[in-house]
Amino acid sequence: MGCIKCDMHYNASVSNEKDHLDMIDFRTEPSSYRHWKLSFSGPVATLAMDVDENAALNPGYDLKLNSYDLGVDIELNDAVQRLRFEHPEIKSVIITSAKERVFCAGANIRMLGQSSHPFKVNFCKFTNETRNAIEDATRNSGQFYLSAISGACAGGGYELALATDYIIMADDGSTSVSMPEVPLLAVLPGTGGLTRLVDKRHVRRDRADFFCTTEEGLKGKRAAEWNLVDEIVPRSQLMETAARRALELGSRSTRPAQHGISLAKIARTIGEQRISYRHVTVEIDRDNANASLIVNGPRSAPPAGFEDGLDSDFWPLAMARELEDAILHLRFNEETIRTWIFRSRGDTEMVKAYDAFLAANSDDWLVREINLYLKRTLKRLDVSSRSLFALIEPGSCFCGTILELALAADRSYMLRGSREGNESPPASISLTEMNFGPLTMCNGLTRLESRFLGQPGQVDDLRGRIGTAIDTTRAEQLGLVSFIPDEIDWDDEIRLAIEERAAFSSDALTGMEASLRFAGPETIESKIFSRLSAWQNWIFQRPNAVGEKGALKLYGTGARPEFDPRRV
Amino acid sequence: MGCIKCDMHYNASVSNEKDHLDMIDFRTEPSSYRHWKLSFSGPVATLAMDVDENAALNPGYDLKLNSYDLGVDIELNDAVQRLRFEHPEIKSVIITSAKERVFCAGANIRMLGQSSHPFKVNFCKFTNETRNAIEDATRNSGQFYLSAISGACAGGGYELALATDYIIMADDGSTSVSMPEVPLLAVLPGTGGLTRLVDKRHVRRDRADFFCTTEEGLKGKRAAEWNLVDEIVPRSQLMETAARRALELGSRSTRPAQHGISLAKIARTIGEQRISYRHVTVEIDRDNANASLIVNGPRSAPPAGFEDGLDSDFWPLAMARELEDAILHLRFNEETIRTWIFRSRGDTEMVKAYDAFLAANSDDWLVREINLYLKRTLKRLDVSSRSLFALIEPGSCFCGTILELALAADRSYMLRGSREGNESPPASISLTEMNFGPLTMCNGLTRLESRFLGQPGQVDDLRGRIGTAIDTTRAEQLGLVSFIPDEIDWDDEIRLAIEERAAFSSDALTGMEASLRFAGPETIESKIFSRLSAWQNWIFQRPNAVGEKGALKLYGTGARPEFDPRRV
Repeated sequence: MGCIKCDMHYNASVSNEKDHLDMIDFRTEPSSYRHWKLSFSGPVATLAMDVDENAALNPGYDLKLNSYDLGVDIELNDAVQRLRFEHPEIKSVIITSAKERVFCAGANIRMLGQSSHPFKVNFCKFTNETRNAIEDATRNSGQFYLSAISGACAGGGYELALATDYIIMADDGSTSVSMPEVPLLAVLPGTGGLTRLVDKRHVRRDRADFFCTTEEGLKGKRAAEWNLVDEIVPRSQLMETAARRALELGSRSTRPAQHGISLAKIARTIGEQRISYRHVTVEIDRDNANASLIVNGPRSAPPAGFEDGLDSDFWPLAMARELEDAILHLRFNEETIRTWIFRSRGDTEMVKAYDAFLAANSDDWLVREINLYLKRTLKRLDVSSRSLFALIEPGSCFCGTILELALAADRSYMLRGSREGNESPPASISLTEMNFGPLTMCNGLTRLESRFLGQPGQVDDLRGRIGTAIDTTRAEQLGLVSFIPDEIDWDDEIRLAIEERAAFSSDALTGMEASLRFAGPETIESKIFSRLSAWQNWIFQRPNAVGEKGALKLYGTGARPEFDPRRV
Repeated sequence: MGCIKCDMHYNASVSNEKDHLDMIDFRTEPSSYRHWKLSFSGPVATLAMDVDENAALNPGYDLKLNSYDLGVDIELNDAVQRLRFEHPEIKSVIITSAKERVFCAGANIRMLGQSSHPFKVNFCKFTNETRNAIEDATRNSGQFYLSAISGACAGGGYELALATDYIIMADDGSTSVSMPEVPLLAVLPGTGGLTRLVDKRHVRRDRADFFCTTEEGLKGKRAAEWNLVDEIVPRSQLMETAARRALELGSRSTRPAQHGISLAKIARTIGEQRISYRHVTVEIDRDNANASLIVNGPRSAPPAGFEDGLDSDFWPLAMARELEDAILHLRFNEETIRTWIFRSRGDTEMVKAYDAFLAANSDDWLVREINLYLKRTLKRLDVSSRSLFALIEPGSCFCGTILELALAADRSYMLRGSREGNESPPASISLTEMNFGPLTMCNGLTRLESRFLGQPGQVDDLRGRIGTAIDTTRAEQLGLVSFIPDEIDWDDEIRLAIEERAAFSSDALTGMEASLRFAGPETIESKIFSRLSAWQNWIFQRPNAVGEKGALKLYGTGARPEFDPRRV
């Protein structure tokens, strides 16, 4: 783990909260895993949780009973990604425990108790995204996740199982599923559990109510009858049954039995004001609390076909991985950088060619994975608690996939005309097939559909413009960009907008952006990020949970929490 | 205003918050209005806001510039109700201001600044419900609401306009619409504004972002172009245009030009442990932090027809009004009563007869209003931050409309067999047409549809059982009740469940219940109560808004707020 001193992270008023001064690195690989054992048997992989209790990410707590912290989940996220790309031959994945008497005790409570509010919220967001990625693999990658539970499966442990689409549980009297958060900790099962209970597994709400208020949870037949699990089997038959189900459930997968591509370690250089990747550069302006995320378009044309094979240097994949790493880094390690500004540089025609390649080969397993990776990465932006701006300038390449960054932004500025001293022609943007389907938001709509919710005809009209260069005036007329200052106004207008943003309350912006970004329908995923997470964030601020006498603070001390007797 | 001393409302740790020891009374009538002027002209009513700045509900603030507090909204709620029932001849309602230079400045900031967290949250909930009732009138009652804006229309003022389905604004240079909450107060426009901007009016998200961060708002042509308003007219033509539009928009209404029924003042007696209405009794058990809401079924059969006319004594209407009053009273005046227990007493056949009357006459304007009133009242339960239990005992009449109380409950207990010393036969429940359509939740589904989301066939099966008495064992088999203890276990099981509930953290229960109650789709209304309100509740706890140096606390003092620089 690298380490940077970020001495301006916290102001004095919050200095009693735990300072996370160690930089969190999201890059890992199986040979470095401390907490998971990954094994393979034909088309079935097994991902066994085996948390090293002495390898917590931060001091102050031990990871007992297969409880997890962010470090455990970083490995899980990595494993889920690699299984998709490096193992096309794997058609189903069994999540289980390598420990004898426990499946997983959920998120580590002491870790939560000592964490700052922003860290808790970001931790939950990341774990939610990982669980959504598991469901995405099952639904869209032909890689079916199931879980095999023996021993206690509590809280976040059961929520992990809920993210898989088939749950087998040992019927042995000591194995149970439970969500003890409300009775024990005065917080919610906040990693999608409540939503998945009623919306995914359709557990009847009164049963869900009973289950979520019953510390010891449910076991055996009743758990199956209430649809908390799909199948119960004698403990001795658990893994054998899981293997059989894995084969059955994976049998419809279209993944080819061939070699995957290996995901090379992402190279980056982190400085105080600049993070350099190969295709992405992050420039941090600490005085004005913002960072520019500059995406460089591809420098050469895509291959004509698959003959030479694609690897993780393939531009769309490499760019997505770097962008994702930058997003996660900024979320966790740069909490005071409150506005992210997307810029791009490069040749629009090259981006167009890559998008055409992705669209033409979308049936190929690897291209499908790349498209899904782009989708998940862009989704991370939508739920990032940062103001998102896009600046579209001469020399930029906001086309197709890269244009999604501007469409994900809370507002975009496109320069009208050319810039003095810049030889590039005036900026233009263009649409590709990638803007019309593969890159949906968590509400199930494309960014264009969500943007033009009241004018569905507009999206059809735009589809007719695929491939055409759209100049600034036209882009504004078509509603694709927010503002189009010319050179005379550009610098001032951008500067004022960024300064203004930096002056507002972060929290009000978070609530506002979360409300404006998701017009239209809701899905399980969007419900998790809005309804459930918003309530959890609230609870994570309430004295009943986090006050000196709150349940989360006192957990494990033997002292009883004291609650405000009022309902709100 | 009555007043009771409720000295156990707050514990010591929150005694520095404003104590709302005056009881809030939600009953009012036009002759008592201090803040609204209601006038009639043929089929058009005008509801003009004319807030008496010296008539605030609580000391400590003046209601300047047509800003509102709960007292202003109680009158608005009353007016909206009465217009429906007392004025069938009114086909459209113009909301406007009686003051010269201001439409409405929104919720009073000093009032918010000095209010306790529970009060703020409950205040927002009630104002949201009132705005939803305005939309319900437009959509379902044939009473079309529009607004005519002249002068400043800010924050909650514009949110009120957004609840109407047509907004006309004076184009006079001094009239504007704005949502200055984020830049000025570090909170959200939390009365549905953000959601209605993007989901109802389909304002493009980047424009909404700009609008919500621009303190002075927008006026004239740009406001119309961005669809923030529907029409701009010279100020001199504002009311004339509004009257013309009101006639046009109301012209398709099916409301009859006849006399309405007058809504008599709700009679009640409030004691320390009991609130008695005619059809509803509330028994408060302070030691165990719960209240039983006992609904008495009708004592006589419904009329054969409309010959004699119905009045506000008609059982379903009278019961709905009393239940609503009890809900609002308990929400605001009994914050520490954390579990509400529904019970009923009466003759199931009588309830059935009333439900049949409502179903048979659902095309009649008045019956339609009664059904909509029942729907809105039951919806208030769904979003009440209280644990809801139902106890179904011998002698009860949980049938049709009253059964909805049990279906709205987080869990229900039905006694198996008879009770010693009670001559009533064993309990049964029954379904009527009212369970299959008219009484939808805010997610657009009936409670049965939401309950059996994964088994739609189950709802069809239940429809076949309309009118049949369903005994305890069968009710449990059909999934209509949660638990069916017999007499031996009943008292203990209920007592333990209630005690357990009282021991949990109120906040965790609130978040859990809000997550489990609304399986299925989301609507604008449900998005307001989940996404938007949950974020606002969070923000209402954040130091950036409510800390000593928070924007809400410092507003009007001239001091600049200080913000935590972290995004969460």
